Amino acid sequence: MSFLRTPDPIPGWLSESELAETRARVPMLYVEAVPVRTDDRGQVLDIGILLRVSPSGSITRCIVSGRVMHGETVRGALSRHIEKDLGPAALPQLPQSPVPFTVAEFFPWPGVSPLRDNRQHAVSLAYVVPMSGDCQPRHDALELAWMTPGDALSDSVAEEMEGGRGTLLRQAMAWVGCLP
Amino acid sequence: MSFLRTPDPIPGWLSESELAETRARVPMLYVEAVPVRTDDRGQVLDIGILLRVSPSGSITRCIVSGRVMHGETVRGALSRHIEKDLGPAALPQLPQSPVPFTVAEFFPWPGVSPLRDNRQHAVSLAYVVPMSGDCQPRHDALELAWMTPGDALSDSVAEEMEGGRGTLLRQAMAWVGCLP
Amino acid sequence: MSFLRTPDPIPGWLSESELAETRARVPMLYVEAVPVRTDDRGQVLDIGILLRVSPSGSITRCIVSGRVMHGETVRGALSRHIEKDLGPAALPQLPQSPVPFTVAEFFPWPGVSPLRDNRQHAVSLAYVVPMSGDCQPRHDALELAWMTPGDALSDSVAEEMEGGRGTLLRQAMAWVGCLP
Amino acid sequence: MSFLRTPDPIPGWLSESELAETRARVPMLYVEAVPVRTDDRGQVLDIGILLRVSPSGSITRCIVSGRVMHGETVRGALSRHIEKDLGPAALPQLPQSPVPFTVAEFFPWPGVSPLRDNRQHAVSLAYVVPMSGDCQPRHDALELAWMTPGDALSDSVAEEMEGGRGTLLRQAMAWVGCLP
Repeated sequence: MSFLRTPDPIPGWLSESELAETRARVPMLYVEAVPVRTDDRGQVLDIGILLRVSPSGSITRCIVSGRVMHGETVRGALSRHIEKDLGPAALPQLPQSPVPFTVAEFFPWPGVSPLRDNRQHAVSLAYVVPMSGDCQPRHDALELAWMTPGDALSDSVAEEMEGGRGTLLRQAMAWVGCLP
Repeated sequence: MSFLRTPDPIPGWLSESELAETRARVPMLYVEAVPVRTDDRGQVLDIGILLRVSPSGSITRCIVSGRVMHGETVRGALSRHIEKDLGPAALPQLPQSPVPFTVAEFFPWPGVSPLRDNRQHAVSLAYVVPMSGDCQPRHDALELAWMTPGDALSDSVAEEMEGGRGTLLRQAMAWVGCLP
Repeated sequence: MSFLRTPDPIPGWLSESELAETRARVPMLYVEAVPVRTDDRGQVLDIGILLRVSPSGSITRCIVSGRVMHGETVRGALSRHIEKDLGPAALPQLPQSPVPFTVAEFFPWPGVSPLRDNRQHAVSLAYVVPMSGDCQPRHDALELAWMTPGDALSDSVAEEMEGGRGTLLRQAMAWVGCLP
Repeated sequence: MSFLRTPDPIPGWLSESELAETRARVPMLYVEAVPVRTDDRGQVLDIGILLRVSPSGSITRCIVSGRVMHGETVRGALSRHIEKDLGPAALPQLPQSPVPFTVAEFFPWPGVSPLRDNRQHAVSLAYVVPMSGDCQPRHDALELAWMTPGDALSDSVAEEMEGGRGTLLRQAMAWVGCLP
């Protein structure tokens, strides 16, 4: 979602007007990564939640999320967005399988899905990604907060999650077996 | 994939030129459905393979496959394409979960994926869908052949599958536990 | 779980003393089925919750659950327990794939898992199973209540679920994309 | 499967006679781990296949596999068997989710499943596990061979896999998107 603000100069990048036009025509393919820390048996201990300043100036919480570009693989997009948001030393353990824990459907209008994206219809493949290195939030993220699953799933955090992604976090924690 | 040929007059439909332009900009979101028949315990008995005449006149084998349109849910797209290809009496048992058995990445160039689509970069969410009714292939499909998993996974069938979808069939059968 | 009370006279059945001895030696393999009703696109509308009288006389809520017997397939166990609890006309749509939405670990002691089974260490493969027929609770179940996901996931229902299975219900609804 | 030969002195361990008795009564719960090496985007590069001398003296190929003991979690069993077979420096990246890529059913008689275990009815939860450290096969394994997916799925390797686990390897590679 942060793509618009600091575009990478790579093929697949679209101008603002091309992007607006395209968004009106087709669902946009996204990836989401829920950053986690695990113990040595793979059990999730903490979830990484980003604090971001939205274009309107308000502060929101989010996870790693971004567009898959033309010609880019899903793995490539995951890797690129994680590096953009968490820095080059995050050492993500990317999933072996392309099967996501859920397929998240965002609509610009209410009533279809609990997830919302005012800019577009987006379909996002969502993954849990353990980080074994040092995460340094970059870009327009102010801070990365590591929270226990219990804290991350609290109502107060869920309400501040961008686009209704509190639901995505609950789905991620259900999948890893960490629902409180 | 059949969408181009008999477009539905619904929002989300694109003209040929809009479609060509969009395909050059972003990955196109697709769904695939592997039609199956099961016994009363859910075990797959047969796979439904469509015979189709390609635009070039050659005969190819395929499964149900098509684009997700702007504003359409993944479930809606699955339902629409199944009805378009297999008729209104097919009675598909659509999946309860949006999680696909695989995410299939098609590129217009070789070397990235075993899957190929000369028209576009497409990312397809692939599902196994039991049909409990009467499948009547419509549209540009000539015939629906029900084959055992062993026959459907044979090299001769795999070679005739559109876009390398023999790989998708093997992934589907691996997921349902029917690899020979 | 109901197995003990009205054993089926089939191979794999164990006497009370054999069962007690075995339970002290190895984890017992179980299956769970969350009965659901869906719309014609596979979207879950309602969850079937059983009301049961526990051996101690108190009333608890549960889902279909039972042991996999020696020589029995996972599909066979699912089918048998669904028929035992919901009757022969329930017409379950059993899963095509053996992959469960979660693996539930029940321990007789606290602290390892939110799931609890005082009798044994049990590991249960959990599935969502749409019922297309007429469910008639049999056996020791008093009643089958169809609830919306929102109602089924309420705290009051979760508290009455046997063995902490409120967590299992939340995982099932996360997987089908129906978390409120 | 190697458990019998060098038992760990921990609770859950069974004598030969208790084990034989238990195996005749209930399905035994197992875990399987397919050791892999991945690139920095999670794509599987190589599969680790163990060479083992079977009790009869013949040489067979296998993956990490073993029993879940009473009181032991699935994660605990995975971790223990990986360490036993691949040494303490293997640094496995254990799965975040307990959901396996397949549930493998082994029967002591033919005809039910392509998987076979002459000793028992076993149900095994199968996972793909990237190894980031140094694997030193221990125990009764002679050697660990790293093979490309193409080589590991060849007919000659599949035929030498213990209990029909060539099928399991194909399912693992289907799930990670590496079917040739």
